[in-house]
Amino acid sequence: MDYRFSTRVSQLKSSAVRDILKLTQGNDLISFAGGLPAEELFPVQAVRDAAGRVLDKGTGALQYGLTEGYLPLRQQLCERMAAKGMVVTPDEMILTTGSQQAIDLLVGVLTEPGDTILVERPTYLACLQVFALHGLNVVSAESDEFGMVPESAEELIRKHKPKLLYAVPTFSNPTGRVWSQERRKRILDMVKQYEMLIIEDDPYGDIKFNEEEYSSLFALAGAAQDNPVLYTSTFSKTVAPALRTGWAIGDSRVIRMMEKAKQAADLQSSTMDQQILSELLGGFDLDAHIALISREYGARMNEMEALLRSAALPDLSWVTPQGGMFLWVDLPEGLDAEALLRCAVQKGVAFVPGSSFYADQPKRNTARLNYTYTKGERTAQGVARLAEAIGEFTARS
Amino acid sequence: MDYRFSTRVSQLKSSAVRDILKLTQGNDLISFAGGLPAEELFPVQAVRDAAGRVLDKGTGALQYGLTEGYLPLRQQLCERMAAKGMVVTPDEMILTTGSQQAIDLLVGVLTEPGDTILVERPTYLACLQVFALHGLNVVSAESDEFGMVPESAEELIRKHKPKLLYAVPTFSNPTGRVWSQERRKRILDMVKQYEMLIIEDDPYGDIKFNEEEYSSLFALAGAAQDNPVLYTSTFSKTVAPALRTGWAIGDSRVIRMMEKAKQAADLQSSTMDQQILSELLGGFDLDAHIALISREYGARMNEMEALLRSAALPDLSWVTPQGGMFLWVDLPEGLDAEALLRCAVQKGVAFVPGSSFYADQPKRNTARLNYTYTKGERTAQGVARLAEAIGEFTARS
Repeated sequence: MDYRFSTRVSQLKSSAVRDILKLTQGNDLISFAGGLPAEELFPVQAVRDAAGRVLDKGTGALQYGLTEGYLPLRQQLCERMAAKGMVVTPDEMILTTGSQQAIDLLVGVLTEPGDTILVERPTYLACLQVFALHGLNVVSAESDEFGMVPESAEELIRKHKPKLLYAVPTFSNPTGRVWSQERRKRILDMVKQYEMLIIEDDPYGDIKFNEEEYSSLFALAGAAQDNPVLYTSTFSKTVAPALRTGWAIGDSRVIRMMEKAKQAADLQSSTMDQQILSELLGGFDLDAHIALISREYGARMNEMEALLRSAALPDLSWVTPQGGMFLWVDLPEGLDAEALLRCAVQKGVAFVPGSSFYADQPKRNTARLNYTYTKGERTAQGVARLAEAIGEFTARS
Repeated sequence: MDYRFSTRVSQLKSSAVRDILKLTQGNDLISFAGGLPAEELFPVQAVRDAAGRVLDKGTGALQYGLTEGYLPLRQQLCERMAAKGMVVTPDEMILTTGSQQAIDLLVGVLTEPGDTILVERPTYLACLQVFALHGLNVVSAESDEFGMVPESAEELIRKHKPKLLYAVPTFSNPTGRVWSQERRKRILDMVKQYEMLIIEDDPYGDIKFNEEEYSSLFALAGAAQDNPVLYTSTFSKTVAPALRTGWAIGDSRVIRMMEKAKQAADLQSSTMDQQILSELLGGFDLDAHIALISREYGARMNEMEALLRSAALPDLSWVTPQGGMFLWVDLPEGLDAEALLRCAVQKGVAFVPGSSFYADQPKRNTARLNYTYTKGERTAQGVARLAEAIGEFTARS
């Protein structure tokens, strides 16, 4: 039987990370691939207590809720946003199934097929899937240690007139880089000048290894009303991914439009999860927990860096991340990370080849290593296996 | 600021039900509008116990899961499907955020913008939103007490060559009707003859007021492999909407394609909810619970019917539903149910005007009444308010 699948979906590349994750389920593969938080740090008792309190409230907790999400959680999130300089009301916020859905809805309401979107080079791979599914033309600007390079961006803007810019300015996925304050202002000015909009994706901003404060692009641009920035974040990295709750903030007209699109997409996200998170925020010091996981992730990053350094692989380089969950590694020139992955998986270690993160002209000798999921002996063993695989490849060429 | 919203989303009508639900939050309006289950019957203690057991398993329960959903729950659902004559493997199933998302994903993978879809007249309103968002051309076949009328369907098929048929053959939303076995076979044969596919939406099939067994179209068509039917259902009506879990079954090629689309849409639905449901199915007699709510809903339907009958409104008619959650009422000729709703809401009762459920040429003197959410005095008061509103309108004309 020929199901005649839609062109867009059938041409869509399956997520490399998801496919690798699938591969790793239930066997001994050490995975530096997924963006998985450290499982053992999940606040399981606090979630358990919160779930109990939700269900103590009676049967009403199990009813349908609003498409835009559970109001008390939106109110609590508004307070958390305000503490970061983002002043919004619950009407300027929508809760989503992870920030992935926020991105999908934003792209759906803000673009027509054929529109152009500007991204960093490299950028988050699952957003590339969203853009492909919505029929967008993707152009990617160069990025350096200070963030998106304005000259490269402006050249592309003039040439392609993109409607939107998508970026992860704080502890980027995959590179772990953070945009400098000056760069943020320049890119924001440019976006305003060319009447574009920005999707600011910030899943990692809370996870930092230094004392710096980074203003979100949203906060730099001002109030929600008329803000060219639509900001999204998630509880997946700070509380737990299984609770699958993200949010977007922005001008209420955009939020209302997302709400309409969400009605069609799934009516609403899990009210159970939203209520659990709301109860959790009431009785649990989330900021202390974030400080704890940040310290631990910083230590794990240092650990992985030290292991890579002591493996003394020639022509391996990276920039030490100041936060987030990823180490972005430049491999020896000419080494194809996809071929390396096949060899590495046989040796029992996985990572994501960098090519997945490029909209075009992939830099094939790059790899994204996650350092938050494993630690200690397991990380050491993983790096040893990886080094062995790289060693074989380098010897061969 | 002009956000230049996408044409499709900005032209999308907001859901009448969702908008009415919003209106009813936190005030004394008696709502026959939403498809809300009876809150007081939710198995809250079983959900509480199940959630406890999930979190007793440790922190791993809070990690990311698979896009296609929690495997043990898929296995349990396969057993439940097999008991209804639908033989599928976990690979032929995907878990979704309610069956609404299953429909959205199915439409996304099976159609191109501009394709035609055949529906019943009237049909589920939130699917009309999905079709609009995907740029489909919707044609609607007549429907009578035995289901979709084959002659009407065939005429439209010949004329418009639809790729897909969408239907709720068992206890339809909004009419509460069930397709006869003979009609199911005829429509299925027709779909095969014209090489079309079917999305069979079955959220209400379990909630029945008689002893009849209705074969799903999927079961009639045979195994999952090469099946022209893609079937979807949900736990929202049988367990609880807040756990937001639906599923789709079908040929594994279709399921894989849905998985790719879901990666972009939201990566995965709530693993928390899926695990709670899996634990619940292990320690709770869901079939006994379904029998209990079916008995209660049958009683509530009888109650509402009796109240409408004793209100003795002239020219009010309906077909007694044998299951499901809705009473579909024909109002006096010339009465516009949308105007009636505005008056009814002022009197403190809400329903959904029938016009929302038509793809075209709405029959304006129709209304959908939900009988599962309220009972006793409140239902009586709601019907009295509604009768008063109708009386005023009839007197006026």
